[in-house]
Amino acid sequence: MKQEIPAKSLHTFCRTDMASELFSAHKRQSGKKENSFEENGIQYHSHSDGGVEVERLCVENEEGAALLQKSIGTYYTVHTGKLRLLTTEAYNSCVAALRHTLSDAITVLLGDSFSVPQADGGLHGRRFSIFTVGLGNPELTPDALGPLCVNALNVTRHLEGEASFARSLLDTVHIHAAFCPMVVGQTGIETLELVRGAVRTVMPDLVILVDALAASEMRSLCRTVQISTTGIHPGGGIGNKRCSLDRETLGVPVMTVGVPTVISAATLIYRGLEASSLLPDAAEDAHPLTARLIEVLEDSDMGFVSPKDIDCDVREFARLIAQVLNEIVLGESIAGEWFCRV
Amino acid sequence: MKQEIPAKSLHTFCRTDMASELFSAHKRQSGKKENSFEENGIQYHSHSDGGVEVERLCVENEEGAALLQKSIGTYYTVHTGKLRLLTTEAYNSCVAALRHTLSDAITVLLGDSFSVPQADGGLHGRRFSIFTVGLGNPELTPDALGPLCVNALNVTRHLEGEASFARSLLDTVHIHAAFCPMVVGQTGIETLELVRGAVRTVMPDLVILVDALAASEMRSLCRTVQISTTGIHPGGGIGNKRCSLDRETLGVPVMTVGVPTVISAATLIYRGLEASSLLPDAAEDAHPLTARLIEVLEDSDMGFVSPKDIDCDVREFARLIAQVLNEIVLGESIAGEWFCRV
Amino acid sequence: MKQEIPAKSLHTFCRTDMASELFSAHKRQSGKKENSFEENGIQYHSHSDGGVEVERLCVENEEGAALLQKSIGTYYTVHTGKLRLLTTEAYNSCVAALRHTLSDAITVLLGDSFSVPQADGGLHGRRFSIFTVGLGNPELTPDALGPLCVNALNVTRHLEGEASFARSLLDTVHIHAAFCPMVVGQTGIETLELVRGAVRTVMPDLVILVDALAASEMRSLCRTVQISTTGIHPGGGIGNKRCSLDRETLGVPVMTVGVPTVISAATLIYRGLEASSLLPDAAEDAHPLTARLIEVLEDSDMGFVSPKDIDCDVREFARLIAQVLNEIVLGESIAGEWFCRV
Amino acid sequence: MKQEIPAKSLHTFCRTDMASELFSAHKRQSGKKENSFEENGIQYHSHSDGGVEVERLCVENEEGAALLQKSIGTYYTVHTGKLRLLTTEAYNSCVAALRHTLSDAITVLLGDSFSVPQADGGLHGRRFSIFTVGLGNPELTPDALGPLCVNALNVTRHLEGEASFARSLLDTVHIHAAFCPMVVGQTGIETLELVRGAVRTVMPDLVILVDALAASEMRSLCRTVQISTTGIHPGGGIGNKRCSLDRETLGVPVMTVGVPTVISAATLIYRGLEASSLLPDAAEDAHPLTARLIEVLEDSDMGFVSPKDIDCDVREFARLIAQVLNEIVLGESIAGEWFCRV
Repeated sequence: MKQEIPAKSLHTFCRTDMASELFSAHKRQSGKKENSFEENGIQYHSHSDGGVEVERLCVENEEGAALLQKSIGTYYTVHTGKLRLLTTEAYNSCVAALRHTLSDAITVLLGDSFSVPQADGGLHGRRFSIFTVGLGNPELTPDALGPLCVNALNVTRHLEGEASFARSLLDTVHIHAAFCPMVVGQTGIETLELVRGAVRTVMPDLVILVDALAASEMRSLCRTVQISTTGIHPGGGIGNKRCSLDRETLGVPVMTVGVPTVISAATLIYRGLEASSLLPDAAEDAHPLTARLIEVLEDSDMGFVSPKDIDCDVREFARLIAQVLNEIVLGESIAGEWFCRV
Repeated sequence: MKQEIPAKSLHTFCRTDMASELFSAHKRQSGKKENSFEENGIQYHSHSDGGVEVERLCVENEEGAALLQKSIGTYYTVHTGKLRLLTTEAYNSCVAALRHTLSDAITVLLGDSFSVPQADGGLHGRRFSIFTVGLGNPELTPDALGPLCVNALNVTRHLEGEASFARSLLDTVHIHAAFCPMVVGQTGIETLELVRGAVRTVMPDLVILVDALAASEMRSLCRTVQISTTGIHPGGGIGNKRCSLDRETLGVPVMTVGVPTVISAATLIYRGLEASSLLPDAAEDAHPLTARLIEVLEDSDMGFVSPKDIDCDVREFARLIAQVLNEIVLGESIAGEWFCRV
Repeated sequence: MKQEIPAKSLHTFCRTDMASELFSAHKRQSGKKENSFEENGIQYHSHSDGGVEVERLCVENEEGAALLQKSIGTYYTVHTGKLRLLTTEAYNSCVAALRHTLSDAITVLLGDSFSVPQADGGLHGRRFSIFTVGLGNPELTPDALGPLCVNALNVTRHLEGEASFARSLLDTVHIHAAFCPMVVGQTGIETLELVRGAVRTVMPDLVILVDALAASEMRSLCRTVQISTTGIHPGGGIGNKRCSLDRETLGVPVMTVGVPTVISAATLIYRGLEASSLLPDAAEDAHPLTARLIEVLEDSDMGFVSPKDIDCDVREFARLIAQVLNEIVLGESIAGEWFCRV
Repeated sequence: MKQEIPAKSLHTFCRTDMASELFSAHKRQSGKKENSFEENGIQYHSHSDGGVEVERLCVENEEGAALLQKSIGTYYTVHTGKLRLLTTEAYNSCVAALRHTLSDAITVLLGDSFSVPQADGGLHGRRFSIFTVGLGNPELTPDALGPLCVNALNVTRHLEGEASFARSLLDTVHIHAAFCPMVVGQTGIETLELVRGAVRTVMPDLVILVDALAASEMRSLCRTVQISTTGIHPGGGIGNKRCSLDRETLGVPVMTVGVPTVISAATLIYRGLEASSLLPDAAEDAHPLTARLIEVLEDSDMGFVSPKDIDCDVREFARLIAQVLNEIVLGESIAGEWFCRV
């Protein structure tokens, strides 16, 4: 006997984690063209940081949340383009733009007492404990963004207890720990459970989630970094929806850094139908075609789409994010034997 | 200015490497139901080997080749099902069925003088030199089948020159070498060029290509092994079509062992449209919808679709194929210090 | 200014995790040759399980612990030999011997109510919750045993909550979860802290640690599996000594499964000196040579030694242990769609 | 019966690929302290390139070759120190010093018509075809330098045939191809055979070998890059000596870029004995201790030593070398869609 499935509408198969895609659709409909405006609980601003376009979208209240189908919070989109195609100079501009954006987002969450350590004298504000969590399956190329990023981080938390002469240096930087919970099919443990356990152990001031995201269009893939002050649903990209990781479930502020690397196979077909103007009208859920399409989309729902060169893209973005996180936590110029693995 | 693109028909986006899919469509159309028949240059036979369904399809002449859009040759499909879901017993049946099928295919190519080494006395026929080539990108999960398989092979060719007391043991088994040419985007060298160079070096009697294949339906993925006596187009699955690897280009008989792990994103949309009865009639290439659909399909042509648990499947199939190749070359029970890495 | 270092004796550089090495030395000194005896708080028994030698060493009290320099508990050594050199038959004997030994060790820890699920009817005793922890650095070939093993496990714990018709099948097997804490240099979090957090989340009846071990002789490497009913010091093999993972620190019974894959570089030199009869007498810690040797050994203390083919060995042992753990938890013949990743 | 082994002297176990180690020993003996001198067929020069020490050692004739036990040719040592401990600025100095050194070495081999492509106008000299070969076993952490480096290269050779508008851009850069032959235990094919086959296919003007090297001291590991105008013995580091890869065997000029990542276990013990003044005099090969030591050293000869954090070091050096090779071939600022994977 087949299980009773709650009535679905076609639109549930058009899924995306990308605020910029959702907002573009909204902009198209509303005919807006300005780089900056505020309305209906949404605040939008776009600017160029050294040639790199950075969008900031604040979902201010329930009205905005309903409009965009995103939780209340701030979403930044840093438009890097394909990293491999950048000149060294353009790449360094992306590093800077991403560092500025991450700093902004952290300041939204932790307040003005947060600062990036400076070459001359270290921290101008409080010393914070930061915990970076690399979500996703390291064995699956497009899902490996988080684990690859964690692999390239410099962590320091384990050095805290050591009464060494690194002490004075450690005091000039934030405290950094990191962790990869893998995915529930590998561990048998919900990601939220594992991360919550680790957060209770580490007791950080801020959790930074790094994750591969799902987009809804091929041309969105591997060209932006999205930073948000809200948590996420692990497996939003690949894998099933699971319990949210956010301030409410983890008990501390949560920032998310993600790159769109996949599209749900069902979403790809949905988008293909849409672009061909073959989708039945949303109002016609009773349409016989709608029922048939829903079956087709469900059949493909266990698949995901990636570009053919995703191995390069994921590696490059993981490295970029790790570099910027290292700079945020340790400062741009810090280094020293105290921060290598022991 | 946009480049002049040769007129395409929609059907060119419905791509598959799987003989069984092509033949199923043919069977459905012709209304055939028998397990065995011969007609129009096609010979078909299906049987159970210890509970494992094995299909054999011979494309005997140009008529059959045109009908199925496959080169002349023999195509075997071993229906293993999802390997992880098998009991130990069922898994061992798959090993045996695959070994029998590979033996058959090699005999088609090398003649009756080929035999699998036996526990008592080794080779009953000639001693052959076999060269296994693991095609694909090791960094891309669904494309890593070939490289992962090569990684688990026992090779022996390098021991030939050694005047050791392994000599008598070596004489009871075939000679085995292996190689991974990676992909053209990593090397800048066409796969055919690199493999041809290696074949000239190794001078084998038989080349075995192991590669990830493209199917056209989600339900085909990671449930069969296809063996053929013809060569292949590397990148047929992921990546662009490149020069064929076959008897003609390599100068020696070529056998291919593949597992469908991906679907072209364009093919997925095509199939979705087809299943929803939304495809314009093939005759109507001038239909305005056709032109629009072709644009949509081309946009998605750089993407590929895989199931979410492809990491497990690829690993399991690579191991299965490596085990069977080791048994084919060395016999089921052989072992000895001579065959380990030096 | 150099730190004050506590006086060391040369012997502290001769390190090993292997009970069998420590016991062999004891046997040599005491002249014992029997397969079974009991004395000075040590109980020893050796037998053949289907051709595979299995040693069991019980350290029964403080006297035995002082004699062997091992914690009180039971240590099993399963002598598999080099896995790659085994015939299929011999390999299957190793699987069986390892399964029997693991069952024994678990029964020591959990009591007679533990049983391996049977093909006909499942569990004859209680249903237990088991948590396997893969210790070590997945990026470092000889240290990757634990992570590689976890990668090949079938876990089930996440299916517990689902009110599906898998329910009746789930009731016939134990509950299995798994986890890789990586190493402190990657996470900034002590392994003990992370594992303790995860144990509090999972609340298992038994923790199984899988880890690469350190031996003191080249000929010990990659030829045995050691199972013990005591915990371990992570980084005993590679990396620094850190807080113990055991029943006391984790709060539940702990079993350890390990394979010797490395030798400390200092231990290698120590053993080389010993074999060349160049070591100063242990009594002569004041000997000028002793001081010089201690300096030499300390210089090499950040290095570890592995055999050149360690990549194959680690992969093979990880797979063997994963297979046996899967059989212990799910039974030898179980399979079904409920146990694949979701 | 044991094989007759040619009489060995102890010194054969003190192996190193590092010209700087051999030369340091020579300098110590000869009491030289200058930064620049010439004698006995050896020309030596040391200078600072933006704070990075670069040594150049020319072995000019047979006399020098006999003295240093290195082939005639030029050996550069770029002293980077531990890469992870560098500030961004210091890292960039290493990139520049390495780029200058590689340019010099290539000019020695290809003549003055070689130049690095410039931002304004591309090549000032001839356009060369360069073939980078990543030697070593990708599965073995300290041996993976070459394969990891190749993985991060931008190759262009496959774009040559395309009559695209990339043509004008391609003409401003050198032609680059790359390849990983793996190791003989994985392929059954001698590295020389595979590389020679590939060289005949690619027909480059220059072969660049990237390989992990063997040092003889812990403090040499992962702190320098050695560039030479001579070929190498694959497996000089890990694995057995095999046929040389050099201008004579490959037919084109060969440059080698290597990083010391391992020490032979036998060499480690030898050095330990030496540092403890326990080695018998070289003249006393008949000494009973010598025979015993040779046995001890042979026993450990299948092992190799690496530092515990070798995973980070190898990854960092592979990335550094890849970046510099990309700059050498494509110029520092070049980029464009034409150079991404197709």
